[in-house]
Amino acid sequence: MPGNSFGKIFRLTTFGESHGVAIGGIIDGCPAGIPLDLEMIQQELDRRRPGQSAIVTQRKEPDTVEFLSGIFEGKTTGTPIGFEIRNANQKSKDYSHIKDTYRPSHADYTYDEKYGVRDYRGGGRSSARETASRVVAGSIAKQLLKDVKITAFVTSVGDMALKKPISELDFSEIEKNPVRCPDAEMAAKMEQFIKEIRSEGDTVGGVVECVISNVPKGLGEPVFDKLHAELGKAMLSINAVKGFEYGSGFEGTTMRGSEHNDQFNPDGTTKTNLSGGIQGGISNGMDIYFKVAFKPVATLMQKQQTINSSGEEVEMMGKGRHDPCVVPRAVPIVEAMAALVLADYFLQNKTSKI
Amino acid sequence: MPGNSFGKIFRLTTFGESHGVAIGGIIDGCPAGIPLDLEMIQQELDRRRPGQSAIVTQRKEPDTVEFLSGIFEGKTTGTPIGFEIRNANQKSKDYSHIKDTYRPSHADYTYDEKYGVRDYRGGGRSSARETASRVVAGSIAKQLLKDVKITAFVTSVGDMALKKPISELDFSEIEKNPVRCPDAEMAAKMEQFIKEIRSEGDTVGGVVECVISNVPKGLGEPVFDKLHAELGKAMLSINAVKGFEYGSGFEGTTMRGSEHNDQFNPDGTTKTNLSGGIQGGISNGMDIYFKVAFKPVATLMQKQQTINSSGEEVEMMGKGRHDPCVVPRAVPIVEAMAALVLADYFLQNKTSKI
Amino acid sequence: MPGNSFGKIFRLTTFGESHGVAIGGIIDGCPAGIPLDLEMIQQELDRRRPGQSAIVTQRKEPDTVEFLSGIFEGKTTGTPIGFEIRNANQKSKDYSHIKDTYRPSHADYTYDEKYGVRDYRGGGRSSARETASRVVAGSIAKQLLKDVKITAFVTSVGDMALKKPISELDFSEIEKNPVRCPDAEMAAKMEQFIKEIRSEGDTVGGVVECVISNVPKGLGEPVFDKLHAELGKAMLSINAVKGFEYGSGFEGTTMRGSEHNDQFNPDGTTKTNLSGGIQGGISNGMDIYFKVAFKPVATLMQKQQTINSSGEEVEMMGKGRHDPCVVPRAVPIVEAMAALVLADYFLQNKTSKI
Amino acid sequence: MPGNSFGKIFRLTTFGESHGVAIGGIIDGCPAGIPLDLEMIQQELDRRRPGQSAIVTQRKEPDTVEFLSGIFEGKTTGTPIGFEIRNANQKSKDYSHIKDTYRPSHADYTYDEKYGVRDYRGGGRSSARETASRVVAGSIAKQLLKDVKITAFVTSVGDMALKKPISELDFSEIEKNPVRCPDAEMAAKMEQFIKEIRSEGDTVGGVVECVISNVPKGLGEPVFDKLHAELGKAMLSINAVKGFEYGSGFEGTTMRGSEHNDQFNPDGTTKTNLSGGIQGGISNGMDIYFKVAFKPVATLMQKQQTINSSGEEVEMMGKGRHDPCVVPRAVPIVEAMAALVLADYFLQNKTSKI
Repeated sequence: MPGNSFGKIFRLTTFGESHGVAIGGIIDGCPAGIPLDLEMIQQELDRRRPGQSAIVTQRKEPDTVEFLSGIFEGKTTGTPIGFEIRNANQKSKDYSHIKDTYRPSHADYTYDEKYGVRDYRGGGRSSARETASRVVAGSIAKQLLKDVKITAFVTSVGDMALKKPISELDFSEIEKNPVRCPDAEMAAKMEQFIKEIRSEGDTVGGVVECVISNVPKGLGEPVFDKLHAELGKAMLSINAVKGFEYGSGFEGTTMRGSEHNDQFNPDGTTKTNLSGGIQGGISNGMDIYFKVAFKPVATLMQKQQTINSSGEEVEMMGKGRHDPCVVPRAVPIVEAMAALVLADYFLQNKTSKI
Repeated sequence: MPGNSFGKIFRLTTFGESHGVAIGGIIDGCPAGIPLDLEMIQQELDRRRPGQSAIVTQRKEPDTVEFLSGIFEGKTTGTPIGFEIRNANQKSKDYSHIKDTYRPSHADYTYDEKYGVRDYRGGGRSSARETASRVVAGSIAKQLLKDVKITAFVTSVGDMALKKPISELDFSEIEKNPVRCPDAEMAAKMEQFIKEIRSEGDTVGGVVECVISNVPKGLGEPVFDKLHAELGKAMLSINAVKGFEYGSGFEGTTMRGSEHNDQFNPDGTTKTNLSGGIQGGISNGMDIYFKVAFKPVATLMQKQQTINSSGEEVEMMGKGRHDPCVVPRAVPIVEAMAALVLADYFLQNKTSKI
Repeated sequence: MPGNSFGKIFRLTTFGESHGVAIGGIIDGCPAGIPLDLEMIQQELDRRRPGQSAIVTQRKEPDTVEFLSGIFEGKTTGTPIGFEIRNANQKSKDYSHIKDTYRPSHADYTYDEKYGVRDYRGGGRSSARETASRVVAGSIAKQLLKDVKITAFVTSVGDMALKKPISELDFSEIEKNPVRCPDAEMAAKMEQFIKEIRSEGDTVGGVVECVISNVPKGLGEPVFDKLHAELGKAMLSINAVKGFEYGSGFEGTTMRGSEHNDQFNPDGTTKTNLSGGIQGGISNGMDIYFKVAFKPVATLMQKQQTINSSGEEVEMMGKGRHDPCVVPRAVPIVEAMAALVLADYFLQNKTSKI
Repeated sequence: MPGNSFGKIFRLTTFGESHGVAIGGIIDGCPAGIPLDLEMIQQELDRRRPGQSAIVTQRKEPDTVEFLSGIFEGKTTGTPIGFEIRNANQKSKDYSHIKDTYRPSHADYTYDEKYGVRDYRGGGRSSARETASRVVAGSIAKQLLKDVKITAFVTSVGDMALKKPISELDFSEIEKNPVRCPDAEMAAKMEQFIKEIRSEGDTVGGVVECVISNVPKGLGEPVFDKLHAELGKAMLSINAVKGFEYGSGFEGTTMRGSEHNDQFNPDGTTKTNLSGGIQGGISNGMDIYFKVAFKPVATLMQKQQTINSSGEEVEMMGKGRHDPCVVPRAVPIVEAMAALVLADYFLQNKTSKI
């Protein structure tokens, strides 16, 4: 059953395995007349790219996107935007060590159970490489949304957590450090911690937060397609994500209604924003903010016990170059998915009244 | 834009406002040949019904479901199942106190912004009354799934949290107490706490957990429609939900890969289950478990400052009978949504291989 | 798999069997703020109703629609519009003559093959009774479209065909005769012919044409969702339809390009309209016109040889009161489906440019 | 709004303009485990290719497909199949003659009205070049369907019509003549006729018929998604199509029910097949057959009066190499679309009973 599309109107469908010929996608439903800054799209891809800093995987993938259709004389035409990113390292590496082996906490076993077959070259379709296509589409969504500002950043790595309120964070700091933490001091500690983890051949999880400002009112569709429900699905569809909360989140469950309710100002803004910019599934114009939990990367540079497809116990060890911590590179992916959700609801909302 | 449907194959569409003529829905795509226990469906509705215990709203809604189509001689026929629940209290109450007033942290303001019009009788479409239709459909989904066991329960109310591991919980306790907590002692405390909250005219949030056993392997669709992504969306679409996590969740972000990876047994089961029964978005046959965060109910029996639709500051106070804490009645709703997700993927999976 | 919905944005889902409790549906995605004339909806239903004239079935079905949601103070609210029509004759008739018998050229055999079970009471879900729900939704779509004028009429019954060009037809004549033919003389002949056919216990087919004026330009979506492709699907989904053509249709295949091309006037209108108001799948503002072929009704008041579900040859004879010719009552159904298609594209088109 | 996808489970999304970088598509939902014959796919493309005979356009497009994903070790993997066909002649031709000019009976005017912008290079997205992607996907659908035999052929060109019943046609003749007519004598006349038409710089329409044998019973979904409704939509979505009829079609409207009803044999087959293999929208196992009407190609090698985007009258003349008659090359496209429809319903049907 098709599961490789996202969005109802601004609709992305992606294809491609980590070590196939290419990955890419089609954006169908993008309105005509949007002037596209193609360099910005490549820059967003570069924020996600392997090898961009010392604390991410050192794999070499230039990740150059080629647009195949849907753009003419610098603008979108309303027809589908096809694009692809050729895989640089598609060839001939040796995968015999994982061909018949199920890597722990990877998707090898479940793909085999579901499909009876699996592209065993480096994760195949289950690889996070697929998210590069999301970044391409998300970058176009960002350009459609223009004035809306989507900012993601890292607030925790392992048990090192930045405990400042959003209003005290310095967003200009985010892209200045390889962790993408909006606090220089904490960023330095996190960077050091990730290096230690990597030196042990181990990995660690973390949390990405996202703040969206200048959101038009009225985005989101009751009942099942509430704005935060779709944001949640979008984030949970990113590889390695285990949780999502918005506004007051899990902490809000401990509060009383009298503390939690956001009082209105006469202009419709609210004095507090525990609602997280969404009420009844529909944006109210206040900032939307949410947190996304990423588990530690499953590929270790350590020996692990596991089984092969015959059910025999075997020992395996990660090869190649992998991320010790996924959150720094996840930041542009979270932003891209948020942009896809908002762009879609922005277009949906054009049909809500006569 | 349509947002009132859920599911791709086993597809529920709901209609109805809290104080309109009726609520109800259509289940399209239910396979033919399922023997339906209609009493079980009504029992599930009764688990969600107002007035079932001293700690929930004392409103009187019998919530009797009538099936209109799709069932013949006790079995589903493969044609759409239409059903409705007539509203007992649809008439003539006085809503003048909220007609032009935006209740804090409700959807009044956002509906007006989105649609330019709003059914102001008691929440209208944004009311949690809509979830009764989900329980009807979810009960049919449960019967489709037969051997799969879905069990939801309350693990926290305000800051009172049950900290036991799932394996130590006594599920037979859940329906014995009005809180639906699988621990008699904690349940009694929570019940007492909710009564105190109510006596203050206040409300409180809580957490519902859910465990799903006997899940067929292979459910879930990469990439965007991962099983946990859809479960997350399902839960986040329930009124008052602020967060969702599965498996190790937010706590898992603090762990190292070497601790977090689930080692395989030769039979494909895993020694631990931090993955939460899902790997790469596809079920692996282990128990699925997740947590859902509910904020405190926004309707207070206290005076609140707010604004009206002219932007004037006004004072308002809740009328009628409302839940001081939503989690006890949310338990069957969480189960229903989980059943809808699983039934849909169960049917989707029939098309995954030749 | 769900097949009971129509439309992407203005989306109708129907339920109900001919002899179940009720038929009805949900319209999801109807914009807020449309003032609804409920009497007009009932009038449209009356145009489709059995017993309206001497040449249609004399069954008694009042077909009174009740709206359950989505309308407040006379206007649509943007939330789903639920509605139902209770079945007057749902009870206790004797269907033993068709319970195990496959009526020729009906759907009895195929439903059994597909579902393994069938509601044998009078056609069940495959009955054209379901189209009453389409007329309800189509009537709302017409009110959404306001200035667009959709006019269907009968141009042939059996081999009696009205051969006048559309421009010479008198649309004011249509509702004056029971055949709904826009030519009084021909209508009288057709009426007489249908009476003869009925007296023989036989049935006959016919053609319904439809003209749509005042169509906004730009409706229709390339590539697969061309306006005429969706119109065609809509018409072919009506019971008993065997063919669809628009513009020059099958006759156009015999022409040369130099005859067939529509030359432009300076204002973008065309001198001829062999295109039928659609070019490249998108409306150009000229009149849309098309023809729909209806086969003769399969239920005869004659003895027929057939088989039962055990594969034994049996003799059967239609009971009850059936239409000798379906086209007079099909006219409002064709209009309703055309309205549903146009309303949907009208809303879709709001998203085509920035 | 997305209109570039076809199918619910076996789902094709296409992209690409006639003179852009590439055309191509993604097939999402193809089951895993289908052994793919890639040469057969290229052969199907060659049947559609320009330059294949003296009576089709002499443009040079090798139309070589490259698969980018979803196939591993010769089999489908269940993940999306991405593919592309690079455009050979994308560069630098002179389109100044049509840049601001609306070609009669083309989509130039309507695209401008809809999108406010248009890729004016040779038809852009509205070009029939897009159908090459359909042939790729249809060829895979054919391999999924294995035993089902789909055969399309030409039965009329202009007013030259083959009037033989299907049972008397020699299908082995079809690919032996450039017209693809299953009658050698008629084929020769048609070929001669097309050459004459071309020599006059004119074009002509025609009819393609299609017969599908060995269809599994039970395909098709009531109510809106009847098998023939979707077949109709599929065919009407092909460029230049003006009409669709199946089974007895328009001619069937002149018959009486007593002639038209198909009597059953004890094994469930029918003695006649005026139903066209479909009853109540569901296949009954008999041959499905239908006709598709193609209008004359709009591009003429003659002078035509038209207007430009400023509303000024201008004279234009077709350039380049175009088809004088589209039906010979339409044959594989009709087959491909039929295969896509059937493959989709084949998979949908897996979910119809428990």
